Amino acid sequence: MELLKTLPAKEVIYSFSTLNPPVLHIRPGDTVAIETYDCFKNQIQSADQEVAAIDWNEINPATGPIFIEGAEYGDLLKVTIDELEIGTQGVMVTGPELGVMGHRLEQMESKIIPIKDGKAIFNERLHLPLNPMIGVIGVAPEGKPVSCGTPGPHGGNMDTKLITKGATLYFPVFTEGALFALGDFHAAMGDGEVSVSGIEVPGRATVTFDVIKGKHSKFPILQNSDGFAMLVSAMTLDEAVKTAVEETIDLLLPYTDMSVSEITMLMSAAGETQISQVVDPLVTVRFFVPQHVLDSLDIQLFS
Amino acid sequence: MELLKTLPAKEVIYSFSTLNPPVLHIRPGDTVAIETYDCFKNQIQSADQEVAAIDWNEINPATGPIFIEGAEYGDLLKVTIDELEIGTQGVMVTGPELGVMGHRLEQMESKIIPIKDGKAIFNERLHLPLNPMIGVIGVAPEGKPVSCGTPGPHGGNMDTKLITKGATLYFPVFTEGALFALGDFHAAMGDGEVSVSGIEVPGRATVTFDVIKGKHSKFPILQNSDGFAMLVSAMTLDEAVKTAVEETIDLLLPYTDMSVSEITMLMSAAGETQISQVVDPLVTVRFFVPQHVLDSLDIQLFS
Repeated sequence: MELLKTLPAKEVIYSFSTLNPPVLHIRPGDTVAIETYDCFKNQIQSADQEVAAIDWNEINPATGPIFIEGAEYGDLLKVTIDELEIGTQGVMVTGPELGVMGHRLEQMESKIIPIKDGKAIFNERLHLPLNPMIGVIGVAPEGKPVSCGTPGPHGGNMDTKLITKGATLYFPVFTEGALFALGDFHAAMGDGEVSVSGIEVPGRATVTFDVIKGKHSKFPILQNSDGFAMLVSAMTLDEAVKTAVEETIDLLLPYTDMSVSEITMLMSAAGETQISQVVDPLVTVRFFVPQHVLDSLDIQLFS
Repeated sequence: MELLKTLPAKEVIYSFSTLNPPVLHIRPGDTVAIETYDCFKNQIQSADQEVAAIDWNEINPATGPIFIEGAEYGDLLKVTIDELEIGTQGVMVTGPELGVMGHRLEQMESKIIPIKDGKAIFNERLHLPLNPMIGVIGVAPEGKPVSCGTPGPHGGNMDTKLITKGATLYFPVFTEGALFALGDFHAAMGDGEVSVSGIEVPGRATVTFDVIKGKHSKFPILQNSDGFAMLVSAMTLDEAVKTAVEETIDLLLPYTDMSVSEITMLMSAAGETQISQVVDPLVTVRFFVPQHVLDSLDIQLFS
C-alpha cells in the first residue's frame, strides 16, 4: 500500500503562474493531502494584535503547485475533495475600503473566532454552524501570472462555499501538468463574503486528481450530489451572470435535442443564479443546474 | 362568522399608483382571497397561438388596489401569505431581446406547460417540481406611477421565489390606505428568471393584512421560518447587493450592542447575498439573515 502523499503548507505560491516550479509530481488517480496556512499566513493569532502591522505581502498563500502527469493544454483537470479538515481557531478582518461596508469603517479590525464542538464561537451568544470550504483553488492560467487573491477562468480566489468535502471541480488546463494549488480555507462563510473575509482558518484537504482528455470548458465547473454549477468571475455581477448562463446552456445543448429557446425556458424554470463573492478584484457568480434535470435528460457531464 | 372577502381577477391595474381608485376597503387583521390572471392576462392558451399577436398592453396585470384602513405614510404594511393556489396550465415565453439569452433567439416562442400531480410537465421527460410564488406584489409608490413590470421600494415585479405560502412581507407605506395589489404567479421559477418568464399561471392568494405604526423600512422585507431578507431592486446587481447589505446592517444595529465592524463580520460569516431576478427593468437581489442569528441575539423584527 502506498502512503498518502502530503504537501506541507510551507510550499506556498502567491500567484498562479506557468512559471512556478512544481513542488510535487503526481499521476492521474493519485490522492494528495494538502496542508494550508490561513489567508493571512497564520500571522494573526491573538485579539490584541495590530492587524495593520502584519506583512501584507504574505496574503492569500496557496499550497503548490502540483504537476499532474499527462495534463495538457485543452484538457480538463478533475479534482475531487475527499476530506476537508480545519484548524481550531479562525480569524476575521475588516476595515476601510474593504468589502461592502468599507465606507462605514474607520480602522482595520480583527476578531479571533475559536472553532469548538462543531461551531464557530463568534461571541458568547453567537455559536455559528460551520460550513468548511476552500476559498482559493485552481491551476496556472493562460498568459500572465494571476495573484492568488483574484479569481478567473483558472479558478483562484473564487470564494465559493460549494467548494467543500464531496465536491468535484473541473478546471480548464492551460499548461503542461496543470500546476494545481489551493489554500484560503473558511470555517464558515455566507454567499457574498460581504466583509471581505470568511472565518479564515488553516487546514488540510485530501484531494484526488484525474485528467479528462478531449473535453473542454472555458470556466471551472463544480459538481456535487445536488447538481452542477458553472463558476464565472467578471468585473460585475451582471456580466458574470450573463456569461455563466450562456456557458451553461452551450455546455448542455449537445447532450439534448432541445432548441436554444426551449433550454433557455428550462433554465429559467429550474436553474439558479447564485452569488459566490462580491469583494475580490473580480466578483464570482455561479449558475446552478439541479441534478433532477440532468437525471431526467440522462446527462452525465464529461463522460 | 364573516365570509372571506374575495377580489376577482378582473379588478386589474397595470401600474402601482396613488391615483388608482381602491376596489376594496379593509381593516387591519382582515383576510382577503385575491384572484389573478397570469402575466399575459391569460391571453396565451394553446401551443399554436401566435405570441407576437397578443395585446402587449395587457401585460403584468395585478389585482387591486386594496385600501387598508389606518395605513399612513411612514407605516409598514404587513402582508402574510396564508394560501397560494395556482391554475392547471402554465405558459413560458422567450424571444429576441428578452432575458439573458435574447441575443441568441430569432423569434418569439411560447410553451404551454400543464400543471399535474404536483409537477410542471415541461415535456415528456422533464416533470419539474413546483415552487408556486408571487411575482408582482406591492403598494402605491412615492411619486409617479410605476408599471407592474418594474420592481422598486414599493415592491412590484420583484420576481422573488421566497414570496410564497407562509411568507410575511413588510412594505413601506407611501400613501393613505397603502393601495396594495398582487399578480404574476409562477408555478415554478429558478433564481434569476433568466429567460424573462417563470412558468406563468393564474391563481388565487389568501393574504392577511396588518399595519405597523412607528416602524419604517426603505425597502420591502420578507420573513419566513428560515429568517428574513431585505429585497432591493436597482439598475445593477452590484449596486443592489451593496444597498441590501447596508440596509440590513442598519436595520439590525439598534437591536444589538455590536459595532458596525463586528456586525459586518457576522453578516459575512452567516448572511447570504442572493439573486431574485436579472431580467426586469431593474434587477432584484436579497440579503438573507438566517433565523438562528436572530434567535441567538433575541431579535424579533418590528415587535
